[in-house]
Amino acid sequence: MEAITYARAHRDRCLAELQDFLRIPSVSTQAKHQEDVEEAAGWLRDRLLEAGFPEARVMPTDGHPVVFAEWSDAGDAAPTLLIYGHYDVQPPDPLDLWKTPPFEPTLKGDDLYARGASDDKGQLYTHVKAVEAWRETRGAPPVNVKCIFEGEEESGSPSLEAFIREHKDLLSADAALVSDTGFIGKDVPSIVYGLRGLAYLEIEVTGPDHDLHSGTYGGAVLNPINALCRLVADLQDENGRILIPGFYDRVVELPDEERAELAAVPFDRETWLEETGVPTDWGEAEYSILERVSARPTLDLNGIWGGYTEPGAKTVLPSKAFAKLSMRLVPDQDPQRIAELAADHIRALAPPAVQVEVRPLHGGEPALVDRESPMIEAASRAYEEGFGLKPVLVRRGGSIPVVAKMQSILGIETILMGFGLPDDRLHSPNEKFHIPNFYRGIETSIHFMDFLGGEPVS
Amino acid sequence: MEAITYARAHRDRCLAELQDFLRIPSVSTQAKHQEDVEEAAGWLRDRLLEAGFPEARVMPTDGHPVVFAEWSDAGDAAPTLLIYGHYDVQPPDPLDLWKTPPFEPTLKGDDLYARGASDDKGQLYTHVKAVEAWRETRGAPPVNVKCIFEGEEESGSPSLEAFIREHKDLLSADAALVSDTGFIGKDVPSIVYGLRGLAYLEIEVTGPDHDLHSGTYGGAVLNPINALCRLVADLQDENGRILIPGFYDRVVELPDEERAELAAVPFDRETWLEETGVPTDWGEAEYSILERVSARPTLDLNGIWGGYTEPGAKTVLPSKAFAKLSMRLVPDQDPQRIAELAADHIRALAPPAVQVEVRPLHGGEPALVDRESPMIEAASRAYEEGFGLKPVLVRRGGSIPVVAKMQSILGIETILMGFGLPDDRLHSPNEKFHIPNFYRGIETSIHFMDFLGGEPVS
Repeated sequence: MEAITYARAHRDRCLAELQDFLRIPSVSTQAKHQEDVEEAAGWLRDRLLEAGFPEARVMPTDGHPVVFAEWSDAGDAAPTLLIYGHYDVQPPDPLDLWKTPPFEPTLKGDDLYARGASDDKGQLYTHVKAVEAWRETRGAPPVNVKCIFEGEEESGSPSLEAFIREHKDLLSADAALVSDTGFIGKDVPSIVYGLRGLAYLEIEVTGPDHDLHSGTYGGAVLNPINALCRLVADLQDENGRILIPGFYDRVVELPDEERAELAAVPFDRETWLEETGVPTDWGEAEYSILERVSARPTLDLNGIWGGYTEPGAKTVLPSKAFAKLSMRLVPDQDPQRIAELAADHIRALAPPAVQVEVRPLHGGEPALVDRESPMIEAASRAYEEGFGLKPVLVRRGGSIPVVAKMQSILGIETILMGFGLPDDRLHSPNEKFHIPNFYRGIETSIHFMDFLGGEPVS
Repeated sequence: MEAITYARAHRDRCLAELQDFLRIPSVSTQAKHQEDVEEAAGWLRDRLLEAGFPEARVMPTDGHPVVFAEWSDAGDAAPTLLIYGHYDVQPPDPLDLWKTPPFEPTLKGDDLYARGASDDKGQLYTHVKAVEAWRETRGAPPVNVKCIFEGEEESGSPSLEAFIREHKDLLSADAALVSDTGFIGKDVPSIVYGLRGLAYLEIEVTGPDHDLHSGTYGGAVLNPINALCRLVADLQDENGRILIPGFYDRVVELPDEERAELAAVPFDRETWLEETGVPTDWGEAEYSILERVSARPTLDLNGIWGGYTEPGAKTVLPSKAFAKLSMRLVPDQDPQRIAELAADHIRALAPPAVQVEVRPLHGGEPALVDRESPMIEAASRAYEEGFGLKPVLVRRGGSIPVVAKMQSILGIETILMGFGLPDDRLHSPNEKFHIPNFYRGIETSIHFMDFLGGEPVS
């Protein structure tokens, strides 16, 4: 196919463009990167115009802007595909653990190291380059294409729902395509049909109104770090069962059929232990590792701090202690309801000798998409062409709140077609994207548009 | 008395000298202040020579040096007083909570604000100025005086025991004098006869060998922050009872007589609540606040950190989490034994899905001094002259490990004569010393030497 030949001939330039994209430190959660996020949006709009989209613009929201593009010349008979991605990235911390600077993309062997390489700049850019290949070889893609690339995914997409509601007509489509997930094994392409939701809280415990000498006051002043540790320890038992009243009320158990399918997915525990570096796995013994990380809700402390944290000893009884806590949710848990249940429970557990504040940071709904749609079939064939491998159908543990929103507001299903690998170190130091997957992702996207263009989308 | 008249006439200069002393950031626990600690030692030696000591020198140890001075012209019949103090200070963190810079001593009303103002530079300097007053008015103090001023008290005095053993003869004396404590109320001068010991540990919990995405791995990887919180929560019940096996084995209960005395000490709970800013007191209900903070052992987390601690949300499942933990000990608990019991228990509690390391940072023995000695009587009279108030006899909750060492190695009792106030904010931002207490401390020291010189010390 000419589009494939074109894509192969332009691999080096595509990779160089991705490197330019990765040089922009578009960290959405940190105010100091405000201008970088804007720069990334403008950069992406310019590349969309170059790729052939007749229209591409940076559209304001209450937060970081959305980059929108549209190319609807395939005709009314052709389906319209709404491609979602995010051009913002996670903070690079802890910086000292990066072997190469996070915003100086570095090639090592077949991998490209940079914050955002796999999550999500490298993945979203495959589709931009697929459209370019169609333009240069056939004049236009075989489907109508719309793009919605947001700049707040790593902050929980606070402005996205309002944007989608406000621009419902502009965004109307037959289906959505998201590439923000990965293979479950190096040679196991995966189409994701289930995602977890998220409820994220920050806890602040205040004891004395200033730091005290632990000798002079210890024993009669409740230490806020001690109190915080007890509070959060009491939220979960030692096997991972969450003890917040009502937490499991709306959890839908995995159907036996899905459990059987998941059990058949190629998964090697030893490889997983190597990949994570943990001495052993942990969690609810009655569920498999794959089930625990994808179909079960969790509670993780993402950060904790208080008191003296530099080298040496300081005998301080600190005034305050803080924790960041997030819960991954499964269908049909509601993030807002869960955040309230958790906050209420934490406040109820708080002893009278300290003050406890709980602040919600962000949330996102879990999602399940129709496993029987013809989209899944088209995506499966596209992977077989692009990677020479048949993909598996799986649930994943991350959260992409937009999937539930596109279901509920736009009424469309999403196909989650990811090109990342398990060792991409998303959200960690030394994040990378496997370059062959970048090239094959472009080809898979070209094939997907081809298969979609040839048949009606339900 | 002429020495008193002299001291009063030179108050401003004494205060200016103290300010110079406080400008030197002699933080012993931080390597970056190594030179500052040395500078403080040299500064202090020079002031001792100026005050009249015929001999004063900076003596090396394996760590920071000891400043030693001796003036033994009072004759063999006169007692020899060994004055102990420390010229090192606590780290000033958290810096952002200081209203004035910690190493730019600032006068506000009757208070002098600076790190180390009360703990212990201001206090030790009272005795240097008392000796000067004797020299300028009578030619020499009425007792033989030796000074041992160390530079590692805030690091747990790791080199002091070896130094005392090595220089046993040089340090021989009839009694020791330490001013590193405070009044238990603004108008309640206090002679301390009991001090708590200390065992300080650092805990490091490692889960995965790099930070992971909490969505992709949460539920099957034990989060090291969750694990750390559970570990430390399990060390103590919610009322402060410590759950480490063997922890209370050697605790000597307070005799009824002492409990009765402590109950009679002027103590106002409301003032204490204001002073600390806590909503209510906490701890072992069967002991009074004063008993809890002085005669009962404790367990406090002095610091905790791990994961993402900047503003916003990061969905990381971190590789590591750390805590600094200290236990205040009472007679006859042994710091090394307690540190081992705690470390063993923490390791025993550690779940197999994480690795836990426990490192001892430092320790110090608890101490009780003879409440019946004639020294106590002389000190009591000196306070009455210096402050116009009769002191109370109390135990305090802090740790001054040298007291136990001087008992066991030099065979001498210590008189703990403090001039600090409860709101001096030791170890906290905005530490201060009450200037009238500095001046009256000098006079109290002059009187104490006078009374001691007039009678034999047992």
